[in-house]
Amino acid sequence: MTLPIRPELAGLEPYGAPQLDVPVRLNVNENPYAPSARVVADIVGAVAEAAAGLNRYPDRDFAPLRAGLAAYLARESHVSLAPEQLWAANGSNEVMLHLLQAFGGPGRSVVSFAPTYSMYPEYARDTSTAWHVGRRQDDFTVDPEHAAATIARYAPSVVLLASPNNPTGTALPSGTVRAVLDAAAQVPGGCVVVVDEAYAEFRRAGTPSALALLGEYPHLAVSRTMSKAFGMAGARLGYLAAARPLVDALRVVRLPYHLSAVTQAVALAALGHAEELMAQVDGLRRERDALVEWLRGNGLRVADSDANFVLFGVFDDRHAIWQGLLDRGVLIRETGPEGWLRASVGTPEETAAFRAALVEVAGL
Amino acid sequence: MTLPIRPELAGLEPYGAPQLDVPVRLNVNENPYAPSARVVADIVGAVAEAAAGLNRYPDRDFAPLRAGLAAYLARESHVSLAPEQLWAANGSNEVMLHLLQAFGGPGRSVVSFAPTYSMYPEYARDTSTAWHVGRRQDDFTVDPEHAAATIARYAPSVVLLASPNNPTGTALPSGTVRAVLDAAAQVPGGCVVVVDEAYAEFRRAGTPSALALLGEYPHLAVSRTMSKAFGMAGARLGYLAAARPLVDALRVVRLPYHLSAVTQAVALAALGHAEELMAQVDGLRRERDALVEWLRGNGLRVADSDANFVLFGVFDDRHAIWQGLLDRGVLIRETGPEGWLRASVGTPEETAAFRAALVEVAGL
Repeated sequence: MTLPIRPELAGLEPYGAPQLDVPVRLNVNENPYAPSARVVADIVGAVAEAAAGLNRYPDRDFAPLRAGLAAYLARESHVSLAPEQLWAANGSNEVMLHLLQAFGGPGRSVVSFAPTYSMYPEYARDTSTAWHVGRRQDDFTVDPEHAAATIARYAPSVVLLASPNNPTGTALPSGTVRAVLDAAAQVPGGCVVVVDEAYAEFRRAGTPSALALLGEYPHLAVSRTMSKAFGMAGARLGYLAAARPLVDALRVVRLPYHLSAVTQAVALAALGHAEELMAQVDGLRRERDALVEWLRGNGLRVADSDANFVLFGVFDDRHAIWQGLLDRGVLIRETGPEGWLRASVGTPEETAAFRAALVEVAGL
Repeated sequence: MTLPIRPELAGLEPYGAPQLDVPVRLNVNENPYAPSARVVADIVGAVAEAAAGLNRYPDRDFAPLRAGLAAYLARESHVSLAPEQLWAANGSNEVMLHLLQAFGGPGRSVVSFAPTYSMYPEYARDTSTAWHVGRRQDDFTVDPEHAAATIARYAPSVVLLASPNNPTGTALPSGTVRAVLDAAAQVPGGCVVVVDEAYAEFRRAGTPSALALLGEYPHLAVSRTMSKAFGMAGARLGYLAAARPLVDALRVVRLPYHLSAVTQAVALAALGHAEELMAQVDGLRRERDALVEWLRGNGLRVADSDANFVLFGVFDDRHAIWQGLLDRGVLIRETGPEGWLRASVGTPEETAAFRAALVEVAGL
């Protein structure tokens, strides 16, 4: 008996970094700080209320959560958005799936600029959208002219632009984002530009968010997540902001009741503690900047980082470095261009353990 | 500026029944019984534990939950399944999406038998899978010969077979399911048969579950949900059981970390109360059987029901009946073949309110 597995899936392994139980986990860009007792208490209280009505389907349009996300972005990025301009799903993953289901699909293509987030081609594959990449420059920025030429060449219906980029940490200047938006506006049939700002809260002072451009570009979507700065990776809440017609298109392809009543309650409770959770972000940014400096001081190349991780190298045998660190209880990620490695920024203690292990393994 | 919305989505409204705040909601086949204080307490305790680690991504393979689901099915249907034969997602919706992403897609088709669940064509559309239907008979059963001929005609890669069927309540005998499985086995390239048993726990005594056939058919998947019998619609936990190679194919298309740590915790806590929650199912089955009898006693046609709802009619103007009931605070569903209406089985009080309103509106 043959199972009709799609040919492009045959023999593939499920996506995902190894989930290993080691003392220092710096492999998936999690926030190292567990929610405080106050945050946990509010989450538990919100879930207790939701649990009493779990026999009913959740609010399909999650209006309170959309309002809460709009209020958060107003504080974080000084943009004024209506709740109807917000969308949310089970992780940015599902937000991206909705985008490609609505705007990509068979006969269409999506463009991004490599090296970039390794899930992007999987979103394309899962929606039967063709996948094309332009190249980032040696410093992992995107050249506006190359971007425009790439978009003109492939005429995609969607452009995915990570800023800050994963795995390099690179944030793009507004000029580059505008160049991409302008090039996309020339694509016959239309083209949506998704700026993936999963790590935006970690950006350095003066680095802009594409949220500021929303009022000018109806084909712009800016995605965010509560997994990183908010320290809510386990809650799975990704979201985006865009003009309302774009969001309304996503409502057509979402599965009904895709956000559970519990997920909505947890996310709303966490949003109520945004300031406390963001205070940790300042510490992580300082820790990151110090780590970049330390790595460079030890003769390594490090990509400028506006995220909560650093990409560093270049090693002749990066796997040996990765394995040596793992042998010392420090799990980082073997990803990015050949010879580079990515490490998340942890607590000061975790980062110290990483540095000590790296000194031994790389002979710094 | 044109947004590149896929042509098949243009102008569509998002799927979903009206979410209206009325006293008696019998429109989406929810379990009318809220979780007991004991169940809520266990859910809250489980979430408190999960919340303390929410900064970390969830267990991607949700092994404990898969084991819990296998243990539940062993008790409920006397089948012995390995945890690796279980799969779960955010509602049966997402389970179905995974199935069509893995086994459907462009250039392929899915077959079902109408009238049936109105989300099925949406799953097909969302995965660019062609959608074909055979017909159910006048009593809403499926004729095995017609089913085999339909499958031979379209050579689908997936067959969706709801049993008990929504919106008719019709459970299929094992002989019909076997006929479909045998016909599917003849499709060149392979064909997966999904028996959607969302309402299985409500089936009448002696009605089989397709779970008993899993050992014989590697291309069979049986989907279930915690939304109905478990009374956990708000928690969004659908699942399926199948041979391991079939489940492993779903692992390739799932988005990483698709099940939040909170969802896993809530579902496991609820599974711990399966017997208490199932006790309500017995009451709902009795309530359903009495409602079928009462409707028939009042001269209406009622489909045999193995679910927690009844399909009844036939009305010249079903919308007027639906509106009249709504005007009296009773919300049911205008769905099914022309002239029929569907009402969920509620508490005895809710069902009494429905009967009283129907007497007035339909002049029984």
